[in-house]
Amino acid sequence: MPRRARLEAKPQDTNGRRQEEAMWVRNAWYVACWSHELEAGQILARSIIDEPLALYRKQDGTAVAFEDRCCHRFAPLSKGRVEQDDLRCMYHGLKFAPDGRCIEIPGQPLIPHSAAVRRYPTIESGSWLWVWMGDAAAADPALVPPSIALDDPGYRLRCGRLDFAADYQLIDDNLLDLSHLSYAHEKTLGLGAPQWADERPRIIRLERGLRVQRWLRNQVRGYLRRDATFDMWSTYDFLVPGIFLLRTAWYPPGTADGLQLKPPTAAPLFLRCDEQAVTPMTARAARYFYATGARAADIDQRQLDRMFAVVEAAFHEDKAIIEAQQVVIDRDPTRRMLPTSFDAGPTQFRRILAELVEREAQPAQRMAAAAQAQ
Amino acid sequence: MPRRARLEAKPQDTNGRRQEEAMWVRNAWYVACWSHELEAGQILARSIIDEPLALYRKQDGTAVAFEDRCCHRFAPLSKGRVEQDDLRCMYHGLKFAPDGRCIEIPGQPLIPHSAAVRRYPTIESGSWLWVWMGDAAAADPALVPPSIALDDPGYRLRCGRLDFAADYQLIDDNLLDLSHLSYAHEKTLGLGAPQWADERPRIIRLERGLRVQRWLRNQVRGYLRRDATFDMWSTYDFLVPGIFLLRTAWYPPGTADGLQLKPPTAAPLFLRCDEQAVTPMTARAARYFYATGARAADIDQRQLDRMFAVVEAAFHEDKAIIEAQQVVIDRDPTRRMLPTSFDAGPTQFRRILAELVEREAQPAQRMAAAAQAQ
Amino acid sequence: MPRRARLEAKPQDTNGRRQEEAMWVRNAWYVACWSHELEAGQILARSIIDEPLALYRKQDGTAVAFEDRCCHRFAPLSKGRVEQDDLRCMYHGLKFAPDGRCIEIPGQPLIPHSAAVRRYPTIESGSWLWVWMGDAAAADPALVPPSIALDDPGYRLRCGRLDFAADYQLIDDNLLDLSHLSYAHEKTLGLGAPQWADERPRIIRLERGLRVQRWLRNQVRGYLRRDATFDMWSTYDFLVPGIFLLRTAWYPPGTADGLQLKPPTAAPLFLRCDEQAVTPMTARAARYFYATGARAADIDQRQLDRMFAVVEAAFHEDKAIIEAQQVVIDRDPTRRMLPTSFDAGPTQFRRILAELVEREAQPAQRMAAAAQAQ
Repeated sequence: MPRRARLEAKPQDTNGRRQEEAMWVRNAWYVACWSHELEAGQILARSIIDEPLALYRKQDGTAVAFEDRCCHRFAPLSKGRVEQDDLRCMYHGLKFAPDGRCIEIPGQPLIPHSAAVRRYPTIESGSWLWVWMGDAAAADPALVPPSIALDDPGYRLRCGRLDFAADYQLIDDNLLDLSHLSYAHEKTLGLGAPQWADERPRIIRLERGLRVQRWLRNQVRGYLRRDATFDMWSTYDFLVPGIFLLRTAWYPPGTADGLQLKPPTAAPLFLRCDEQAVTPMTARAARYFYATGARAADIDQRQLDRMFAVVEAAFHEDKAIIEAQQVVIDRDPTRRMLPTSFDAGPTQFRRILAELVEREAQPAQRMAAAAQAQ
Repeated sequence: MPRRARLEAKPQDTNGRRQEEAMWVRNAWYVACWSHELEAGQILARSIIDEPLALYRKQDGTAVAFEDRCCHRFAPLSKGRVEQDDLRCMYHGLKFAPDGRCIEIPGQPLIPHSAAVRRYPTIESGSWLWVWMGDAAAADPALVPPSIALDDPGYRLRCGRLDFAADYQLIDDNLLDLSHLSYAHEKTLGLGAPQWADERPRIIRLERGLRVQRWLRNQVRGYLRRDATFDMWSTYDFLVPGIFLLRTAWYPPGTADGLQLKPPTAAPLFLRCDEQAVTPMTARAARYFYATGARAADIDQRQLDRMFAVVEAAFHEDKAIIEAQQVVIDRDPTRRMLPTSFDAGPTQFRRILAELVEREAQPAQRMAAAAQAQ
Repeated sequence: MPRRARLEAKPQDTNGRRQEEAMWVRNAWYVACWSHELEAGQILARSIIDEPLALYRKQDGTAVAFEDRCCHRFAPLSKGRVEQDDLRCMYHGLKFAPDGRCIEIPGQPLIPHSAAVRRYPTIESGSWLWVWMGDAAAADPALVPPSIALDDPGYRLRCGRLDFAADYQLIDDNLLDLSHLSYAHEKTLGLGAPQWADERPRIIRLERGLRVQRWLRNQVRGYLRRDATFDMWSTYDFLVPGIFLLRTAWYPPGTADGLQLKPPTAAPLFLRCDEQAVTPMTARAARYFYATGARAADIDQRQLDRMFAVVEAAFHEDKAIIEAQQVVIDRDPTRRMLPTSFDAGPTQFRRILAELVEREAQPAQRMAAAAQAQ
């Protein structure tokens, strides 16, 4: 309890330099890439929570994720070669099976038991390749967040990605406090919906994240029609480590009346989808994956392309302000931020991450404590 | 006294890595920019003694200098927007009055007293915008060095600036020992005056700096005429933190006879002015501001342009040797330099800076000691 | 003896970050440059074992190597000027004789005894300029490895150089385990000789290095003829700090029969020469000098150019894998490599370097111990 109290007292103690050890949640599914980025026969080098990975596909298409370091003399396996289901290091020729075991050392008949590289669990869901960075025994497919596949016939989506030179938590903060739309994005995303900074959302705690919901009234339908206004219901789940699944639904004016922060019950006139994932690559680098679109019937390709262009412009606005913010933070990590009423989302989510990190750090002590308590 | 003795025993203990805390004089006016660099409606990001500033102008033209960090989530204010006399952070929209107080937090009616950013005193004098980096209560306009404005009708001047990847004190050293003109600038500034390394100047201690004076004989009039020689009187004040105000006066041959190092009494045939300011941006970056020219009657624009070209070529020579020197110093900060008879100026000025730094560091103890002594 | 045991127990404890102090052999001849790189009147800036040097030639052509730091205010001497046999610093004009003594301080008649810069012994041999980085009294010309000069009429050679962003010992490792030819160079050097990974060489300990020898059968004559196969005798001396002197001799098929790992006695049909030197510039930068060729009668210029192109392509392959390996090593220096049967050469040579480093570090204690033992 004292430890917990300490964490709550310092919700912003994460603004320091290179605190990766403290802040990485290991037991989580991280988006490594769009599934289509990993082609047969190719090896992708990707870093997640400061751990370099070599990704490739077996002949049946299953993705394999190895640590990107040959156990012999530490050449990166991502500079190796896929040979059927195996991966060969192209410095001195050691070959590894998909489970990470070394199965060939050229010129040496005996292969020691220790000749192996770490293999990480993988799964493909939605259109993302997810990697579990923690204890392989705990890798639970049920924990993969439910994103829509790019080729889902019910939707029309377009995807992209962008790298940030910043702590991924600053991007999480950004996505958990959409009041910034009115300022950082006043000419892009905020254009059709200027009230973001004036409406306090409802925030619901989920098992591994938060649900954030609000009504905005008198909205024009964004990138599509400007000749009418609607009531707009915005709801997203934000899940560990930084998965953002947003649904924006437009209704006839007056629908929100009397609903306060409760969700609508009828089907919307128009339903927009935004699927995003923030992946920490290192303590100061993150990759931001995003898809945007709507129900297939609601949008055509030309409208989608226009919407996507606005979205990408906005993400570059985020990148500029967040990278600048990171520089300021790193210049003096001892400074304390000023909390405002809009920081509830970021603060609660950082606490969820901190609790998961703490739980992973002390499984033995906790079990012992639980045993003693009985 | 033992402390003072220690400083004198180690006049060169400043060659270490990143000693900014020890070596920054805070209670001083620093040149932030040429006044014309800061335009209405714009925000300039500038760093002085490793502190980032956001500079803008109020509607009446008065310059405002804030720390470049919003108190909310540390976005840089220099990426904000000027709104009348105020500055708005363009991440989440907090607005600040010219005194640094936050006067608007979007979506939050109550503004806590702690919502404020640091404001630095500013003044415009000559053609420079000066910022006082220390205790605002101690900011004394009388301490601003008296430089000539670029639009002073009595003079014809041209200005520029150059950044050095070096400790600003190496540039100060350079300006305080002009013997280097004979070698570093043998083909530029040293061309018309090869005796710099042979004439020891007179050095006079000022309240916050040094005055350096010398006669040089048989000089050609630099960039103007080479068909006659003159006696040349060179005098400059070098003031904290690195303000260099040089007057070079040409006289008929023989004027210097019997004057030793005493100044001339008659009006010169020709009077050249060089106004320069060295501003430390970080421990290893400095900005060098300079204007060069002469009395309006002494020079025309074509001659000034020729003179300015030589000056800029020479400053690039300084930049090359000083940046190279910095690299060598940083490679092994424990090495001791060899003092020569020309180092009196640099050594004395470093001592002045060290004394000011020390005085700022221990005001309370000194006052207590003074009280006890009575 | 316990110390020695420790070294043998941890042959790979050199994979850490910036261990330059521990791992530099000082008492050794290092290749500073090709002799033709240092032209009369020029000053070359070169770094060896993290010590910057200024190299120039006296009027009689003799090379002089100074530390690249004026003793006055630490300007680099490599930005100075050669004046007859001397070198003048072009910041404030101090002049140094070839023995390192300062012989002129402008404006100061008295030159203190301490006014001097460090001079390093040099020698030119083969076509390389060698510098002795340790105790000058111990500089023994007999320790210079015997390389072939580029203008030796008996040979036709072509030379080049390549910089690696890596610990030089990783390049040494690479040259001491040619099994990598089959993988890293499968399309270049390994093309004509695919058995490198299958043939364990004979390794002979030399005074300051290793001799590595092997027969390879059924070899095509590399870049020259592919219509016949030969027995190929490969032998090289690898000497401190990283000098690689390879001779590759082609014999009629069957010559190797019964010889096991013993050298041939007859004259070869074709004799190829490869002369290489690895020079550590800093802990993470090395310069690789190389010449390749054959007996003059064995090769014409067109064939040599073709051979050289393959060699350079292969060295770029080495550079890519070694620089990538260095990044992986530095990411986690605590990881232990997996030894294989091919690591005998690298492991033994690292032990030789470690012993030399240790011997240099403790001359006094060792002498005392020897005295006590009597």
